[in-house]
Amino acid sequence: MWSMGSLAVVLFSGGIDSTTTLAMAIALDYRPIVLSFDYGQKHRLEIEKGKSVLRQFQIDTHMIFPIDLTLIGGSALTSAMPVPKFRNIDSSIPVTYVPGRNLIFLSVAAAIGEVRGAFDLFYGANVLDYSGYPDCRPEFIAALERTLEAGTKSGTEGRSFKIHAPLLKMTKAEIILKGLELGVDYSNTHSCYDPSADGTACGACDSCLLRQKGFEEAGVKDPAVYSRQGAP
Amino acid sequence: MWSMGSLAVVLFSGGIDSTTTLAMAIALDYRPIVLSFDYGQKHRLEIEKGKSVLRQFQIDTHMIFPIDLTLIGGSALTSAMPVPKFRNIDSSIPVTYVPGRNLIFLSVAAAIGEVRGAFDLFYGANVLDYSGYPDCRPEFIAALERTLEAGTKSGTEGRSFKIHAPLLKMTKAEIILKGLELGVDYSNTHSCYDPSADGTACGACDSCLLRQKGFEEAGVKDPAVYSRQGAP
Repeated sequence: MWSMGSLAVVLFSGGIDSTTTLAMAIALDYRPIVLSFDYGQKHRLEIEKGKSVLRQFQIDTHMIFPIDLTLIGGSALTSAMPVPKFRNIDSSIPVTYVPGRNLIFLSVAAAIGEVRGAFDLFYGANVLDYSGYPDCRPEFIAALERTLEAGTKSGTEGRSFKIHAPLLKMTKAEIILKGLELGVDYSNTHSCYDPSADGTACGACDSCLLRQKGFEEAGVKDPAVYSRQGAP
Repeated sequence: MWSMGSLAVVLFSGGIDSTTTLAMAIALDYRPIVLSFDYGQKHRLEIEKGKSVLRQFQIDTHMIFPIDLTLIGGSALTSAMPVPKFRNIDSSIPVTYVPGRNLIFLSVAAAIGEVRGAFDLFYGANVLDYSGYPDCRPEFIAALERTLEAGTKSGTEGRSFKIHAPLLKMTKAEIILKGLELGVDYSNTHSCYDPSADGTACGACDSCLLRQKGFEEAGVKDPAVYSRQGAP
């Protein structure tokens, strides 16, 4: 009998982390329902760029869910507040934190999963080379799993959601090496929070800095095109 | 010095429960940020009807957040699936359950609260005269509070969200009597899941049946207009 893997909902932004997570879900034989959000982000072009990642993986089911988080604001990614450049990335939570975003995204993913029978959710959070976002931490993920168990029909019927965060304890360099091992072409990924109109990365936001550091530590050339390189 | 209550985000559908919850929040001296959702519900007119409730309370800050849950489906409220009529309301979860809805709504409420400095969220869930929805139960609310503590900036900084569900253990009759005591005019509220185009309630969906039972038990005349009354 021909076997098929289980369905899984994969949160996908088109960046390094979610692209690698997607590759890992596929390697684990899950059939991915790829879910992206058009949420009013400044770097909305990540959605378009993400399509080339999906073409590489021959995935044609891509759900782009619209939710206008600019109505909520409070973040440099969804309001006129400028994206910080060459910030010293420490343990503080930066203004690129988007209130409620990952909770809302994972809630939508669970809702889709419940309707489609996909109780495995993949989420590319990591807590080593990251920007200090609270909604990337393991205690958040564990609490949300408990919430889904208590608050969904399937949870009360004994079908619990599992939130897989396979990158959680990996460095960016390890993530990149893992992705390369799985055949990811990182030239298709987009990381920059504040790209120019033609899609060139700024090279100075947290996301660019973490990406550059990751490729450097991995000893691999970063295929991204930057408008400027290095510290100011 | 003139004192003002704290800001609170109040989830508001325009029905009996959320209207009474709003009245209770105001009686507790909270300044409400009233939040409704335009989510593709069949009974979208609840949003319009809700405006007369807000006029009665002289509230002019009403946020109507759009999120298209018909893209997810899986519910009689957001798809072509018919709304059940004269159902025997038992402990099973009916097809009017909307996967993820209340989790998504409360997540958006918390995000708005975090940006606006409102750490009190009001939610009209109750578990006595209700349709068996898992996302109305106290264990869901407790788990979500923990999730917000772990996954928000304010939570990690020691400002925890409190989800107030003052109706949780009240019968529908008690809710109605409480609202009347606080001056609620229930002729402004809308309950029906499946109203006719002119807004007349069907009198047969779970929501109509629970409403009718509540008014009957409270010994108060229900001001709603129904297209039919009683069992078929």
